[in-house]
Amino acid sequence: MSGPAERSEHARNEFAFEKLACDGSARRGRLSTPHGAIETPAFVAVATQATLKGVDPELAAAAGTQVLFANTYHLYLRPGPELVAEHGGLHRFMAWQRPLFTDSGGFQVFSLGASIEHRVGKVANIFPDEAAGGGGGPRLGASGSMVRVGEDEVRFVSHIDGSRHVFTPETSIEIQRALGADVILAFDECTSPLHDESYTRASMLRTHRWARRCLLAFREREAPHPYRQALYGVVQGGAFEGLRRESAAVIGAMPFEGMAIGGNLGRSHADMHRVLEWTVPSLPERLPRHLLGIGDVPGILAAVVRGVDTFDCVVPTRNARTGTVLARHDDDGRPRPAFRFNLRNAAFARDRRPLEGECDCGTCRRFTRAYLRHLLKAGESLAPQLLSVHNLRFMERLMCELRGAIAAGRLSDCVLEWVGHDPQLSAAVLGKP
Amino acid sequence: MSGPAERSEHARNEFAFEKLACDGSARRGRLSTPHGAIETPAFVAVATQATLKGVDPELAAAAGTQVLFANTYHLYLRPGPELVAEHGGLHRFMAWQRPLFTDSGGFQVFSLGASIEHRVGKVANIFPDEAAGGGGGPRLGASGSMVRVGEDEVRFVSHIDGSRHVFTPETSIEIQRALGADVILAFDECTSPLHDESYTRASMLRTHRWARRCLLAFREREAPHPYRQALYGVVQGGAFEGLRRESAAVIGAMPFEGMAIGGNLGRSHADMHRVLEWTVPSLPERLPRHLLGIGDVPGILAAVVRGVDTFDCVVPTRNARTGTVLARHDDDGRPRPAFRFNLRNAAFARDRRPLEGECDCGTCRRFTRAYLRHLLKAGESLAPQLLSVHNLRFMERLMCELRGAIAAGRLSDCVLEWVGHDPQLSAAVLGKP
Repeated sequence: MSGPAERSEHARNEFAFEKLACDGSARRGRLSTPHGAIETPAFVAVATQATLKGVDPELAAAAGTQVLFANTYHLYLRPGPELVAEHGGLHRFMAWQRPLFTDSGGFQVFSLGASIEHRVGKVANIFPDEAAGGGGGPRLGASGSMVRVGEDEVRFVSHIDGSRHVFTPETSIEIQRALGADVILAFDECTSPLHDESYTRASMLRTHRWARRCLLAFREREAPHPYRQALYGVVQGGAFEGLRRESAAVIGAMPFEGMAIGGNLGRSHADMHRVLEWTVPSLPERLPRHLLGIGDVPGILAAVVRGVDTFDCVVPTRNARTGTVLARHDDDGRPRPAFRFNLRNAAFARDRRPLEGECDCGTCRRFTRAYLRHLLKAGESLAPQLLSVHNLRFMERLMCELRGAIAAGRLSDCVLEWVGHDPQLSAAVLGKP
Repeated sequence: MSGPAERSEHARNEFAFEKLACDGSARRGRLSTPHGAIETPAFVAVATQATLKGVDPELAAAAGTQVLFANTYHLYLRPGPELVAEHGGLHRFMAWQRPLFTDSGGFQVFSLGASIEHRVGKVANIFPDEAAGGGGGPRLGASGSMVRVGEDEVRFVSHIDGSRHVFTPETSIEIQRALGADVILAFDECTSPLHDESYTRASMLRTHRWARRCLLAFREREAPHPYRQALYGVVQGGAFEGLRRESAAVIGAMPFEGMAIGGNLGRSHADMHRVLEWTVPSLPERLPRHLLGIGDVPGILAAVVRGVDTFDCVVPTRNARTGTVLARHDDDGRPRPAFRFNLRNAAFARDRRPLEGECDCGTCRRFTRAYLRHLLKAGESLAPQLLSVHNLRFMERLMCELRGAIAAGRLSDCVLEWVGHDPQLSAAVLGKP
């Protein structure tokens, strides 16, 4: 028996990446998943704890958000993968019927380990007593680290309650199987910009060994949900040319269904451009490519130009919580510095214009800057909600514009429309010397 | 010229209260305002700072919320009535096209004055140094009061920045004219349960004098917005029978378009029942009646039974912020104590049921208790949002049920369905000795 229902179920279980158009190295694509298609290049909004912070998933979908990215480490600790699996996976748990990614937990090796040892990194402030040089709080390894990386496993201490845990490549896959995102990531160690080449090489080689174990675990363990998941490999190698080229070649040759570029991308946009130029050409042309943790406009433009298909970043919602609004032009039509402004500025106190004149989001359609600033100043939680919706919509409009430009073969023009006012930046973004 | 557009504009400017049915003293009515009709009895959700805390107004409307209540004192201090007026009034400012109430600022005379002097009241914790007996913070009157009540005016200190301000009956009306709610309230002093009869009488008589000044100011000052507002009088008199009867007779005889019952309602449900029984019979039958600050289920039932048409309360959103869910029955179909439960309870950690099985809100349709509890435990701001939507919907379903019961002449049965499991409470609610 193979009726329409069964065929449709089969189609739902497809995972496929289709290139619809190219412009230089840039690709306009479609990533089909069991929970629908993602038009690429696409921005993946971050929903760390199975929620896009402060945004009702229906409003995120209405803003055009195509796909969310949840964090395995956080969900493992709270509420635990078993509970999510009992719900039938993350999609049902968080009432998000569109595609989902999860990371491997590997980023937390960085954020709980090296970043604290080195007093740098994205979540270095997770242990304020550490940062202050105090002696309290849970400990595990030497030099105040919350994590110990071994060949077989990573031991770490929960940032929530100080409990001790172990991740292996196999447990990462098992947890991500239970969570049930459409795209899951191989377990990796994300090195810090302060690690030297020797440590970064050793870590990269270990990440490669872990990648093979992840592929094996992914094949061997039965999926708990009635739809297919896709496993991406993660390229490491820090900001070292030789290591990045080697990692891209090694990971690119493994039978993953997509490729992620992770780890330390250097200290500047120029460094990131070089990392992409060393990496992307070695990745299989037919597979989707994800860049981890990039969400600023010039960074996205540069990555799209260099052939990246998807990106995740907390920028839209994190900015919203500080009153930072993503906006392309100021009120005289000039590009805004860094494509954003801070709504707390007194200049907006009586401003009855929408956040961004060209925006069609639910916030810009209904509210003035003065009202939204009032909410911010009054500490009202509706402010970050409404700003998040706008910021998410901003990203979607940017991605939509880039997709159209690639399809029309005018990506360079589009990039210049965004950053042409800064010749140095636009040359760097476009990779012209 | 009097075409359809003009007639429709005229109709929009109507303010009228129509009684559709009665059941004992209870009324099923329709309050028409320039921003649409309110089916009564109705719950008025509180949007203190021109926002229903944490709830997108579109989602509040989708939950059936008919009307919001904003606070003049808060909006006067921030963002100021001028800014709201420049937007064309509160409706446009906060993107709420349904009816709105504002209070007079008088409640803050209580919350900033007597409540601090007496260390009681709804916002006594507004000055933590006061409560702790410390010496810091802004001061105005004797005994640490932030407010000084005179015959002509109230002087007070801003809780935001310590700046000094004066309200008179005339300024309260002027501010409420600028804010532009459909229903506005006469300026009153709200006495504390700890005030004695002598002070409460003097205060009530002053409130009566202020009521006349408000009527005059309301007639004399031109409305800044192109729609009509309605002015309600406020009955005071504390928990003293003689004073309540006198105040209801005096305020009830003044040419207001509606009547509010304010101030101290005593220390128990029984006290409140008595206050309503002393007050409501003296109020004009043809006018709508609002009870200030009541939102618990037995309180609403008792007030509806006694002929009250509308109520405002922060309960749905404030409860949501502490994880308290309004729900009629437990999972065995028994009435929940106080018609609520705390979702933080560990019993809900793996509970895949909706908050309330009988609820049709956007939260119950999509999310499990376990997911919502996860959000609460993780400190995610989506939790109070989603719980608020449910709690608002709970109130709307209750009010809808009461309206149906009055229209069908079976209000007593309906009350017994809600509180009949507690014979003492149901007798008290129904006013049977």
